[in-house]
Amino acid sequence: MADTGEKLMNKIVSLCKRRGFVYQGSEIYGGLANTWDYGPYGAELKQNIKRYWWKKVVHERDDVVGLDSAILMHPKVWEASGHVAGFNDALIDCKNCKSRFRADHLIEETLGLHVEGKSVKELSEIVHDNKVKCPVCGAVDWTDARVFNLMFKTHQGVTEDSSSIVYLRPETAQGIFVNFKNIVDTCRVKLPFGIAQIGKAFRNEITPGNFIFRTREFEQMELEFFVKPGEDMEWFDYWRNFTMEFFTSLGVKKENLRLRDHSPEELSHYSKATTDLEYNFPFGWGELWGVANRTDFDLSRHMEYSGKALTYFDQEEQKHIIPYVIEPSLGVDRAMLAILCDAYREEEVEGETRVVLGLSPVMAPVKCAVLPLFKKEPLEELARKIYHDLKKVFTAEYDNAGSIGKRYRRQDEIGTPYCITVDYESLNDNKVTVRDRDTMLQDRIEISKVKEYLEERLI
Amino acid sequence: MADTGEKLMNKIVSLCKRRGFVYQGSEIYGGLANTWDYGPYGAELKQNIKRYWWKKVVHERDDVVGLDSAILMHPKVWEASGHVAGFNDALIDCKNCKSRFRADHLIEETLGLHVEGKSVKELSEIVHDNKVKCPVCGAVDWTDARVFNLMFKTHQGVTEDSSSIVYLRPETAQGIFVNFKNIVDTCRVKLPFGIAQIGKAFRNEITPGNFIFRTREFEQMELEFFVKPGEDMEWFDYWRNFTMEFFTSLGVKKENLRLRDHSPEELSHYSKATTDLEYNFPFGWGELWGVANRTDFDLSRHMEYSGKALTYFDQEEQKHIIPYVIEPSLGVDRAMLAILCDAYREEEVEGETRVVLGLSPVMAPVKCAVLPLFKKEPLEELARKIYHDLKKVFTAEYDNAGSIGKRYRRQDEIGTPYCITVDYESLNDNKVTVRDRDTMLQDRIEISKVKEYLEERLI
Repeated sequence: MADTGEKLMNKIVSLCKRRGFVYQGSEIYGGLANTWDYGPYGAELKQNIKRYWWKKVVHERDDVVGLDSAILMHPKVWEASGHVAGFNDALIDCKNCKSRFRADHLIEETLGLHVEGKSVKELSEIVHDNKVKCPVCGAVDWTDARVFNLMFKTHQGVTEDSSSIVYLRPETAQGIFVNFKNIVDTCRVKLPFGIAQIGKAFRNEITPGNFIFRTREFEQMELEFFVKPGEDMEWFDYWRNFTMEFFTSLGVKKENLRLRDHSPEELSHYSKATTDLEYNFPFGWGELWGVANRTDFDLSRHMEYSGKALTYFDQEEQKHIIPYVIEPSLGVDRAMLAILCDAYREEEVEGETRVVLGLSPVMAPVKCAVLPLFKKEPLEELARKIYHDLKKVFTAEYDNAGSIGKRYRRQDEIGTPYCITVDYESLNDNKVTVRDRDTMLQDRIEISKVKEYLEERLI
Repeated sequence: MADTGEKLMNKIVSLCKRRGFVYQGSEIYGGLANTWDYGPYGAELKQNIKRYWWKKVVHERDDVVGLDSAILMHPKVWEASGHVAGFNDALIDCKNCKSRFRADHLIEETLGLHVEGKSVKELSEIVHDNKVKCPVCGAVDWTDARVFNLMFKTHQGVTEDSSSIVYLRPETAQGIFVNFKNIVDTCRVKLPFGIAQIGKAFRNEITPGNFIFRTREFEQMELEFFVKPGEDMEWFDYWRNFTMEFFTSLGVKKENLRLRDHSPEELSHYSKATTDLEYNFPFGWGELWGVANRTDFDLSRHMEYSGKALTYFDQEEQKHIIPYVIEPSLGVDRAMLAILCDAYREEEVEGETRVVLGLSPVMAPVKCAVLPLFKKEPLEELARKIYHDLKKVFTAEYDNAGSIGKRYRRQDEIGTPYCITVDYESLNDNKVTVRDRDTMLQDRIEISKVKEYLEERLI
């Protein structure tokens, strides 16, 4: 029986640490809550995810251009976007034990009620009226709920007063909206077209958690796809399907993915329709990729707040319009978690447990490993030569330490699709053994053909 | 005569804006001082720089692994590193006109003195004793100089008190040092070895400027290369030379690059030797890549502050040692500025000025553009087919708008190495014209051989 839930999650976290994918942030100082550092293999995997997304969303398309805007933006941006006024959580404290909760979570967990869209006052009343017991101490003695803005604040320049406040962006999307006009004016784009960007965002979440699923600092891959009003639902459907295809093209199991449409109550104030692509994480279904029809909300608000015309001249209709926008928004970190969870498996092999990360070749941090059967010359000389040749084309590793079985297991755990073993016979027949990670079957291949063999299977 | 200085700089900034390389950050809100957003071509160029660095520093080597650590780190990290106590500028105000200056800059500019390593008190005394006149109003009426820490501060969690302070990292390097043990324990590294990382850093500079040369938010590419004590100066020389080779391999002109060794007074407290690779920017020579021998300063300090043993077991000598470290530290943004400045040129062609970005093919945001001579079928059908075939391999553009001359000029300005023109003859002879950006010479090539032709020249 495969492990599930917390037990499985612990195994994945443990593999990530043990094999250099993800370490606790600032670990030698006891960690900084909810920060994570990506180790050598994690950094490669993260880069592979970003490159694949950029390839699919920007490079392979004719209708999307890229952007890389600053994390620090003018504070007016966040007034216009609604984040200063509305990007809040409602917090409530138990007066008895001083525990602090998100009011909506407290209500959902203790009363089983869904409270999307309720005001802080309404949330307070629900807690008080229902005499909710504190999950920690059991008391029924609550403060009123109050709002807490989730944006990180800092000060730019020498003085620390309200005039110097800047926020760490809570999403990359607004960097796209404020550059809409710049791109229309300089980059020959025509509706429908998209602007894509990858970058860090920050949210001062009260209850982050589940490893790299919900972190205060995270990386987003966001696309704002601008369309003519009236064509928005068609493009919404297009991008909704795109998300599913993206992950299945990486070999993520279809049964672990589902599209969940938001109910009318759940919709954000700016959204006409939202669908989440969800993944069945060990801790349950969780949002992976949100696709929202944001209408002309953002461009209109920025027009209002900046006084600039963020319009597009429609040649056909000979008039200026404010485009609608479809936003598919994906987190790099949780995409990585989904890919890791989906790839993780344990198998019984000859009475031993084999742990495998069955990563798609395009995602694997190391594409192939070259293993001399023994740590001896001239075996190693030949193996090193093969390694250096392959390394020009693929990320490759050379490993000469320990038993061959142990080295295979190590490569299995980091998801390396192919291991190339060089033995004494290789010195005579100019052939090596290529082992497939998934089937564990071995092919005897001429050394001169190894590159071709791998290219066919890896690219 | 080629333009120099401010005039040249203004032209480069203007091209960057006009052609979608770099926009002012938050421009529609009047800009946020000293922030810049990278447009479609800038985002590609920046990615090309990062990929090339990663390729040269990580993928092509056997002795360097990557890392991607969090921007938010435990505040103790910055106590250990010396940033909380020592990462300061001394500021001084004119009491008469309220202008504020960096004391060291004021002294250097008015008295021509070099004051590296002077204390705040000493700087105050120099200004007062020399009766320095305020460059703005001419008064001689100064406050005492005082220290201003350059780290951006924010608060993590709900409360805003000293216990919740976190800093935006002012360098990516410390993320490497605090993960030293994790990587030694999990990634089979052996001295000498390096850990490389690319990521954002933030410094609340008093006087940022010169376009993207000195910005408060910037991106670093840092390598910490750990070596045995005693082998440090040899490796220092190695990495010192590496920086020069890196840029010349990208076609950056050797006469615009120089290595400048720091004088003993200029050295940071942690450094045994430092060399800057400098570039001759239009505004003068400026630091591009700093190479420092940081000795065992950082690991020792983190050992002291964390109580953890950040040592390496030397198999040969059978003892635990604290490695020395060589740090080559390069800014992505200023690398991009150097590459842009070096590539920019104007030529007189048939009485007109041709502006060219002579970017190395590996850096060019667009590798080739396909241009149908006229906006007509079946010319366009053929051109689009060629474009889509090339696009599978290269970043390519399709442009059918305006005169062919205008389209060539546009591609010249964004640095596209090759333009492929499809004309009526192409429909008969299955050939196209390939134009070289630099020589403007045109080759007539069989359509089936264009990919090969470009591959030879671009990769």
